[in-house]
Amino acid sequence: MAVQTQLVAVMGRGVVEPDEPFVTASDLGLTRGDGCFDAMRLVAGPSGSHIDHRAGHMARFARSCAAAELDMDPVAWDALIDQAVAAWQGEGEATIKIVTTRGPELHPGTQTSFLTVTSLSPSVLVDRQGMSVVTLSRGYGADLFADVPWLLGGVKVLAYAVNMAASRHALAAGAREALFVSSDGYALEAPTAALLWRADDTLWTTRTGATGILHSITAAALLDAASANGVATGRGLIRPAEITEGWLASAVRGVCPITALDGRRLEVDPDLTCRLAALAGF
Amino acid sequence: MAVQTQLVAVMGRGVVEPDEPFVTASDLGLTRGDGCFDAMRLVAGPSGSHIDHRAGHMARFARSCAAAELDMDPVAWDALIDQAVAAWQGEGEATIKIVTTRGPELHPGTQTSFLTVTSLSPSVLVDRQGMSVVTLSRGYGADLFADVPWLLGGVKVLAYAVNMAASRHALAAGAREALFVSSDGYALEAPTAALLWRADDTLWTTRTGATGILHSITAAALLDAASANGVATGRGLIRPAEITEGWLASAVRGVCPITALDGRRLEVDPDLTCRLAALAGF
Repeated sequence: MAVQTQLVAVMGRGVVEPDEPFVTASDLGLTRGDGCFDAMRLVAGPSGSHIDHRAGHMARFARSCAAAELDMDPVAWDALIDQAVAAWQGEGEATIKIVTTRGPELHPGTQTSFLTVTSLSPSVLVDRQGMSVVTLSRGYGADLFADVPWLLGGVKVLAYAVNMAASRHALAAGAREALFVSSDGYALEAPTAALLWRADDTLWTTRTGATGILHSITAAALLDAASANGVATGRGLIRPAEITEGWLASAVRGVCPITALDGRRLEVDPDLTCRLAALAGF
Repeated sequence: MAVQTQLVAVMGRGVVEPDEPFVTASDLGLTRGDGCFDAMRLVAGPSGSHIDHRAGHMARFARSCAAAELDMDPVAWDALIDQAVAAWQGEGEATIKIVTTRGPELHPGTQTSFLTVTSLSPSVLVDRQGMSVVTLSRGYGADLFADVPWLLGGVKVLAYAVNMAASRHALAAGAREALFVSSDGYALEAPTAALLWRADDTLWTTRTGATGILHSITAAALLDAASANGVATGRGLIRPAEITEGWLASAVRGVCPITALDGRRLEVDPDLTCRLAALAGF
């Protein structure tokens, strides 16, 4: 059986061919990046399949949609996801991305909703061995987002052009990924991953809320599991120069050790990374 | 003859039905807001049609694409635009929006490029009579963008989710439109329009470059024409509280007087607005 690279399912229609177009020129997701998404990991094997932290991802997607004033029907989404997982023929790891847009500007009030299931990119396996990272300014102060809901801090909207540009700039600078820093000098998050670091025998991640940082389902699950295993955990802020050991974490990439930060080599403990990855379900 | 509301033309294919889908689930314009656009005004009548400042808009589109590391073939775009204008059956004002995305993630290197021609929304005629405006923080300092190309300051990318959210918040606050202010208190631009103001017998607009403000083709054309007619002009920064008479300007809306700013009534001189609109070609 051929391994699929992508499966596409459209709300109201079900599974369609991956290369079948279904979005029109006036769709506000396309013309304005005006929509929300979320991404979770599917692990499929002969004896069944499993979605990591499905409830947490669906709850975050619902919060994103509420913040962007978009409808989100959890029952319809659950049915579409179940349908897609049943139809997915791939084995091993895949990414389920769920997307809803404000829909065609010519037909107001009709959201465009769909999902993709995509086989894991081999490059992710390399990332899990270690990533070199460079810091790039995000331009915002670390406590900017407290009372400015229109800036969509922490909302997973489709408008990721700056995130994509930052990743391209990091690659051009000879690193694997970018790490955003606030205008007042604090490490925030990577374009598509959360930051974790170890300091004073405590496992930390950046705090969400006023920082505008996306609430990482993977980092939260990892910290919860670590805490349940007796590890001290915390949420705070740190300056990049103070990081001696760190990881980037996401639902797809898992827990990737940072090998170098702005050219400075960080401590890498493969056993610890392995234990953290296991705690996060990887 | 029925007046069209929208015409769609796709690069490599030509004119298609407006409701024909041609974008797939993995298109990076759709999933990441990763692409560029520009918009210009088409005025069509029985004796022919005209695109305002076509060369200026195409040059800006080329600059946006270069900054986002996307290809832009001016000859192919000119041909597609000519084809669309020839096929357009509408009369009066319309908007030509040109769009290119990084294309389907499943097929790297193939940009998705298309344009739409859309009849003028009647709401624009109301805007031209006057708009109430509220200021909303943009979160960035006014001189942030000097050396941070990954933040895409002044680049017309598809990722307008914050702009759209700001406009919705302005409407919810009882105003017609938002005006972004920098974290250090300067008026910047509206979500889809430039700011102009009169002070000391000089017509001003906000400066581009380090402010990250989009270079407005309409504001530049207006200032050039005003200067050629003996009006003093300038580019600078102003705090909202210091604005006593102002306008929002864009290629589609033309020159719209600001009737109120954060609830404070501004001076409105209909004769001056009429002269400025004429200088801008409206």
